[in-house]
Amino acid sequence: MGVTDTCYFGYLCDSKPDTIFQKMQDFHSTDTIIALSTPPGIGAIGVLRVSGANAISKTNELFKGKNLETQESHTIHFGTLREGKEIVDEVLVSLFVGPNSYTGENVVEISCHGSEYIIQRIIRIFGKLGVRYAKAGEFTRRAFLNGKFDLAQAEAVADLISSDSEVSHRAAMNQMRGGFSEEIKVLRERLVHFASMIELELDFSEEDVEFANREELKNLILDLQAKIQTLADSFKVGNVIKNGVPTVIAGKPNAGKSTLLNALLNEEKAIVSAIAGTTRDFIEDEMNIEGIGFRFIDTAGLREAQDEIEAIGVERAKEKMKSASLILYVLDMGEVKSLKAYEEQLEEVKSYGVPFIMVGNKAEFVSREAFTTLGNREEVCLISAKTGDNLEVLKTKILERINLPDFKAGNTIVTNARHYESLVSTQQALEEVIEALDNGVTGDFLALDIRNATYQLGEITGQITTDDLLGNIFSKFCIGK
Amino acid sequence: MGVTDTCYFGYLCDSKPDTIFQKMQDFHSTDTIIALSTPPGIGAIGVLRVSGANAISKTNELFKGKNLETQESHTIHFGTLREGKEIVDEVLVSLFVGPNSYTGENVVEISCHGSEYIIQRIIRIFGKLGVRYAKAGEFTRRAFLNGKFDLAQAEAVADLISSDSEVSHRAAMNQMRGGFSEEIKVLRERLVHFASMIELELDFSEEDVEFANREELKNLILDLQAKIQTLADSFKVGNVIKNGVPTVIAGKPNAGKSTLLNALLNEEKAIVSAIAGTTRDFIEDEMNIEGIGFRFIDTAGLREAQDEIEAIGVERAKEKMKSASLILYVLDMGEVKSLKAYEEQLEEVKSYGVPFIMVGNKAEFVSREAFTTLGNREEVCLISAKTGDNLEVLKTKILERINLPDFKAGNTIVTNARHYESLVSTQQALEEVIEALDNGVTGDFLALDIRNATYQLGEITGQITTDDLLGNIFSKFCIGK
Repeated sequence: MGVTDTCYFGYLCDSKPDTIFQKMQDFHSTDTIIALSTPPGIGAIGVLRVSGANAISKTNELFKGKNLETQESHTIHFGTLREGKEIVDEVLVSLFVGPNSYTGENVVEISCHGSEYIIQRIIRIFGKLGVRYAKAGEFTRRAFLNGKFDLAQAEAVADLISSDSEVSHRAAMNQMRGGFSEEIKVLRERLVHFASMIELELDFSEEDVEFANREELKNLILDLQAKIQTLADSFKVGNVIKNGVPTVIAGKPNAGKSTLLNALLNEEKAIVSAIAGTTRDFIEDEMNIEGIGFRFIDTAGLREAQDEIEAIGVERAKEKMKSASLILYVLDMGEVKSLKAYEEQLEEVKSYGVPFIMVGNKAEFVSREAFTTLGNREEVCLISAKTGDNLEVLKTKILERINLPDFKAGNTIVTNARHYESLVSTQQALEEVIEALDNGVTGDFLALDIRNATYQLGEITGQITTDDLLGNIFSKFCIGK
Repeated sequence: MGVTDTCYFGYLCDSKPDTIFQKMQDFHSTDTIIALSTPPGIGAIGVLRVSGANAISKTNELFKGKNLETQESHTIHFGTLREGKEIVDEVLVSLFVGPNSYTGENVVEISCHGSEYIIQRIIRIFGKLGVRYAKAGEFTRRAFLNGKFDLAQAEAVADLISSDSEVSHRAAMNQMRGGFSEEIKVLRERLVHFASMIELELDFSEEDVEFANREELKNLILDLQAKIQTLADSFKVGNVIKNGVPTVIAGKPNAGKSTLLNALLNEEKAIVSAIAGTTRDFIEDEMNIEGIGFRFIDTAGLREAQDEIEAIGVERAKEKMKSASLILYVLDMGEVKSLKAYEEQLEEVKSYGVPFIMVGNKAEFVSREAFTTLGNREEVCLISAKTGDNLEVLKTKILERINLPDFKAGNTIVTNARHYESLVSTQQALEEVIEALDNGVTGDFLALDIRNATYQLGEITGQITTDDLLGNIFSKFCIGK
């Protein structure tokens, strides 16, 4: 059995990387595709991306201006796109001759006027020339298959696009630039090296040699385990960085939940009305506090529902509260008539088992007595959502309450659930290697266990992939990427 | 008084076109500006446009890759945008060296990952270098001021972007390509020629010569009036082409208004629920029938409102109906118990004074008797919004009822209210010229009247402009255009 590293369909096959890439290409369509790469909607311009061997020649058939097929890569050309004699639009065409393009294939980017009608029509006329509408993530998938970047970097592209805070942007950029891949590759190479040493022993099995020092191997594994554990542990932070802290705003009708949400977001998103039961749907919005993303979820008021639709709303509000990372429970201070009334609500909030802040709203209406009784309680923050008083204090309390571990700019943070799962599987595989070493199992079984661990790590960067895995990853991308 | 054509601040000034353009530039900022040119939201890529003398040098300060200042126009360069040492994004930079650019100035288009965070950050770091965020339509305004196209063409850019049907697209494209401007310019030049002839007479006023034949002038004016009237008349069609036919879907609660809207649009836009009063807001959506755009407006059910919010909804529904071009009045055929009940509703619909169709929904529940009595009435169309039965018949009836005049592909259609108003003012001015001719007024007054007409026509193409006019036009553009 030879030394193998990159492998496509399993973890004990025996092909050279070159032939494997050939094989991967055979399994994937290389026809010419088109999609809108800019967000849908009306804007000054929209950009359509065309990729494939015929991207330039097909565009040339529709383009009136210079002959695009004789132009150099990385140049821009003005002209009109036509359907028959009719001008569909005046466009700028950018040419990227493969392999010097995003996908590694010939790529054309068509910058047209940002009208949905024009964009749909251009896609349709390309369709008539046999240019297919791209599937989600298909451009990036082709870039991966053409060796433009590894899988973790490709996934970082999607993360980068959806990053909405300083920390999530930094984590995604680090991953896209290959920082994370590098760490994984170094760890994996050390394992692969040991696996090959042990496999070499097998070739000389009659001679009872030991190329791979068992003590050294065990130390290596322990070292790897510690490193991988650090990465796996970072996922708890990474997940919050990527998706934002889910924060539910709850409370009785008219306590001022929507007003608080608006005050925090500083815009008029929720419909604010004096009629109880106005908010029926969940309104999700995001904001950053000190570079950390928060997802705020406004909920229906927690009263006995007056109608069918509202009842569903209240039920779902309770579910949302149980799964949140933080509850901001809003009280109308003008309505809190006694400490007992307050404590009843406090007990209810506690019952969800989630960190919370009791936000005493309309603090301007509070009696001096209530102010001292409640205002000094650790879980309470008195504010006025309407005037904005004490909102900054509330923000500070929010940061305290979620208590996110520090992470320094240089540290690698795992933000991807798939990577986290691979890391956990790697730990289990390494555990089995340790066990095998302790039990003094023979080299062939040891090699199998080590290969299993390298397989798990290889899935992160895509050195090991399957069609299913790729399908799974790229289907989550937006179309046009 | 000399012969003047292009004029900036009034209609009897006396400058050469060259010096006027100089003057116009003096009145407008030429600093470097930036804006997002693609629609906001998450997409694969976003494109930021930078324009101004320093566009390339400022980008170069932030860009790590090739030296952008020594690159040729119409080339694309890959690299990173940085804030200090931190990489903000990997980008493609497209260079357009003025005057060969959209605005006529140096232009850089930065294609970055379509993350709102990244886009905001790039705008911020350009801001630190003194690059200002562009105002709405500022790029196109600069293009106009630099003589890239005339005002009617600039306005067509905005129309083209918002075009959402074959006919509106064709009208806007024709206007952007200069078809409309050409007609106006030809008309105007003939007037200008006559004005100059008359002004020449004034220079020789002692000699009592008549360079401009009065009879010929009158015939010209009559000819112009006929042409301008055709253009002005086309606005009725043009307005509908541009904005779509406003069509209100009305009827009692639960008649099936939202279901009809969904069936027509073939998607689940409105919340359909069996609880009366679900639809409180107006839901506007658009669709094309045979290339003509329709704007469908779903309204709150016309019942006695149960609460404050709904009452406002019903009131506004009635207003919407009065200003619509077509009312689709939906009846639940299962609920129409007598011809009298039907005719009561018919009378109400007629009272709005707008073309209408009585849409008999839930036709599957109708009695044989009602089917023959109502089904044969000219204003009725029996359908089932739920099953989709007879929807095509309804669409045909809709086209019949709005009775839009035919317009052939080659015809120029006025779609812009501003142009329409200028055309009407031109007609009035020409009327005064005719009156002056009939009264045999002296050449100087005649020249003044003709100049007034050329002024009105000149406003359409921007040969005559004021800052107010430009501000008004370009403020309606989207930012980034």
